[in-house]
Amino acid sequence: MDLSRQGSAVRADLAEPLERAKEATSTASRAAEIKERCRQLAQITDIPGQTTRSFLSPAMRRCMGTVQSWMEAAQMSITIDAAGNLRGLYPGSRPDALRLVVGSHLDTVPNAGAFDGVLGVLLGLALVESLEGQRLSFAIELIAFSEEEGVRFGVPFIGSRAVTGQIDRELLSTQDAEGISVRQAMLDFGLDPERLPEATLDRAAAAYLEFHIEQGPALESEDRSLGVVDCIAGQTRGEVIFTGASNHAGTTPMRLRRDALAAAAEWIAAVERLARNEEGLVATVGRIEVHPGAENVIAGEAQASLDVRHADDAMRRSAVERLIAATESIARARSLEARWCLQMDQVAVAMDAQLSQMAVDAIRGIGLQPLRMMSGAGHDAMIIASRLPSAMIFLRSPGGISHHPDESVRIEDVANALNAGLGFLRGFHKVIIGAHA
Amino acid sequence: MDLSRQGSAVRADLAEPLERAKEATSTASRAAEIKERCRQLAQITDIPGQTTRSFLSPAMRRCMGTVQSWMEAAQMSITIDAAGNLRGLYPGSRPDALRLVVGSHLDTVPNAGAFDGVLGVLLGLALVESLEGQRLSFAIELIAFSEEEGVRFGVPFIGSRAVTGQIDRELLSTQDAEGISVRQAMLDFGLDPERLPEATLDRAAAAYLEFHIEQGPALESEDRSLGVVDCIAGQTRGEVIFTGASNHAGTTPMRLRRDALAAAAEWIAAVERLARNEEGLVATVGRIEVHPGAENVIAGEAQASLDVRHADDAMRRSAVERLIAATESIARARSLEARWCLQMDQVAVAMDAQLSQMAVDAIRGIGLQPLRMMSGAGHDAMIIASRLPSAMIFLRSPGGISHHPDESVRIEDVANALNAGLGFLRGFHKVIIGAHA
Repeated sequence: MDLSRQGSAVRADLAEPLERAKEATSTASRAAEIKERCRQLAQITDIPGQTTRSFLSPAMRRCMGTVQSWMEAAQMSITIDAAGNLRGLYPGSRPDALRLVVGSHLDTVPNAGAFDGVLGVLLGLALVESLEGQRLSFAIELIAFSEEEGVRFGVPFIGSRAVTGQIDRELLSTQDAEGISVRQAMLDFGLDPERLPEATLDRAAAAYLEFHIEQGPALESEDRSLGVVDCIAGQTRGEVIFTGASNHAGTTPMRLRRDALAAAAEWIAAVERLARNEEGLVATVGRIEVHPGAENVIAGEAQASLDVRHADDAMRRSAVERLIAATESIARARSLEARWCLQMDQVAVAMDAQLSQMAVDAIRGIGLQPLRMMSGAGHDAMIIASRLPSAMIFLRSPGGISHHPDESVRIEDVANALNAGLGFLRGFHKVIIGAHA
Repeated sequence: MDLSRQGSAVRADLAEPLERAKEATSTASRAAEIKERCRQLAQITDIPGQTTRSFLSPAMRRCMGTVQSWMEAAQMSITIDAAGNLRGLYPGSRPDALRLVVGSHLDTVPNAGAFDGVLGVLLGLALVESLEGQRLSFAIELIAFSEEEGVRFGVPFIGSRAVTGQIDRELLSTQDAEGISVRQAMLDFGLDPERLPEATLDRAAAAYLEFHIEQGPALESEDRSLGVVDCIAGQTRGEVIFTGASNHAGTTPMRLRRDALAAAAEWIAAVERLARNEEGLVATVGRIEVHPGAENVIAGEAQASLDVRHADDAMRRSAVERLIAATESIARARSLEARWCLQMDQVAVAMDAQLSQMAVDAIRGIGLQPLRMMSGAGHDAMIIASRLPSAMIFLRSPGGISHHPDESVRIEDVANALNAGLGFLRGFHKVIIGAHA
């Protein structure tokens, strides 16, 4: 992070207002309130009985209204940009103050839990509320992104793409299942896609912080409350199709079979073996379809998906190459054919080392040892990192459960995140002071 | 085969009429005619553009009409029994002659080939036609079974069950997809289910011979025209369900996964390995379903089918036990659960040794070496074997293809089968003469 490139010089003493945020008791009650608010927003849904809020939907409008009222009560000035991002600005002590951007998303997957995205927004809000109106040496811009999950248009990160100027004509023309384009959806919501350029981050924006539930079991398995993300994994997705010969299960001797499912099974074992042997690599076959798929018929074709992720792109690509080679050698040995189809090759995105260290220090400052970790899932921070030094703090996911109504979070972890966030604000203040000393 | 238990004494000289069937040229043209007739019957279908004839369907009535006209032309007297079996009797030289029953089925799987079942019926017909009206020391009853495939009612062998007295009240009440019972289907076709007892085999019936395409690649791979079935394999069918934990493919480290598909893949490999190492065993996983079945989600559940067949029931059951044990050890090592559900346990049925040897001798008599083999698929002979000494002659299946429009047969193999059939009639004559000498 190089804050010196920022133009304005800001100086203020952060110690006093932050110390006035009475940490112990008030944080515990704020944490309870954050969790309660997440549950409250989970009731706002496009599909009754679930938590399902998609980009620019009626439920999303109601959800934004509720969050906006909380932001306003916390003395933030509100804008809704052309992509539907709800943005609250909590000014700094000077009009030209640099900005710390804090954010996460309000949209959900279908039948979601209450915390994915929303928790990060409400932790940012609670940080501002903890300041109780006191001005800092920097401004805080809280962004509740309108779209991260990619559900409605099959394209994720529309909110953060907008604030980084990455929405192009093609994306605006992309249609949802009902044939409505992104552009039309914006117009229908009362937004003006012509004003998208105004949605880009203000030049005072200096850094980005995002809280998010981990959505995995790593923190829980290491008995940690919080983690700091070093890197969002790069990802390869694709599909392999084994083609053998469909035949009678009773009349075809084993040695004369060209069984596509047996080939796929051998390959799935190879995928698992390779991933187990490479530190930090995850590789998954989550979908398989066999044809004809009858009990008494040898499978003539098997289609299997592959999802490979690693923090190191070279390592990931090497693993994928080895797995493609495995499809070929397995197919050759069985007189089958194997075809590989690449669907996604997304590079890893590193978080900012200095800002992440600030998050680590803040967590240590409240007496906890954070887990330094990779995020296997994508997040808004991955997009924002192309414009701003970015850091992510993960909260423990009980049972590692996410994208499910059983998704939850422990209040003590929310309180820790809030306290660590306050520590982060102190650390950020020091950097700003230092940068402009 | 013990023909001596048959009451009537029959004596005749078979040599003369059989030699009058001019083998070389006339057999070749008869073989071509058999194949042509199979193609002709394949046009008679319930679903235009396919070959689909189900039990007691309109197409089946038309098909029976055509076959009946051919039977009548060959001087057979026709009955249609209460189960819709089309039966032609070609009398012996004496009214109390023993009967050789020859048969196969006229129904098909959906979108079938032209030869499965039908070829056996038309080979039997051609044998009678080859006699050109000459009477033998035994009668020939040709049965075109109305139902073998089990398509309409989910229960196979309704035709052969009827002639062996194995249709009970429960079977008569079984309903098809449209809620029509077997009993009602018989009534709708103009049959009288009350007269089912009359459908059982006449006490003069002494033995059963069935020709059938192999429906597998064994004969072709051994470069043989014909095979003789020693045994119809016993069969176990079931399903195993692995239950693990569905989770995020990006955020769940390999060591914390409980991947149901990875477990299933390991088991599928074990199934294949075991079957490859046991002579004569075939074991197939032809169907697998994974939940939730998304590219980026670790499978929480995998359901996989199992089909195991072997001539030796003890060997088959031991193999199944080992495969169930494998599900348990795989599940235990992965902290998953495995549940096994048995769906079918059908014992192996041996063909009659003496009658099969007669088939072998007949094939050797035309200068060919038959393959002694197991049938992995079920056939009417499996049911008839409970009442009569039975033998089966298999014809090579080009490419091993069956239950498919591409199913075919080579004319030279049909000619060989016809010539071998004539030899079998000679052999059968000798046994009858011998039994009553």
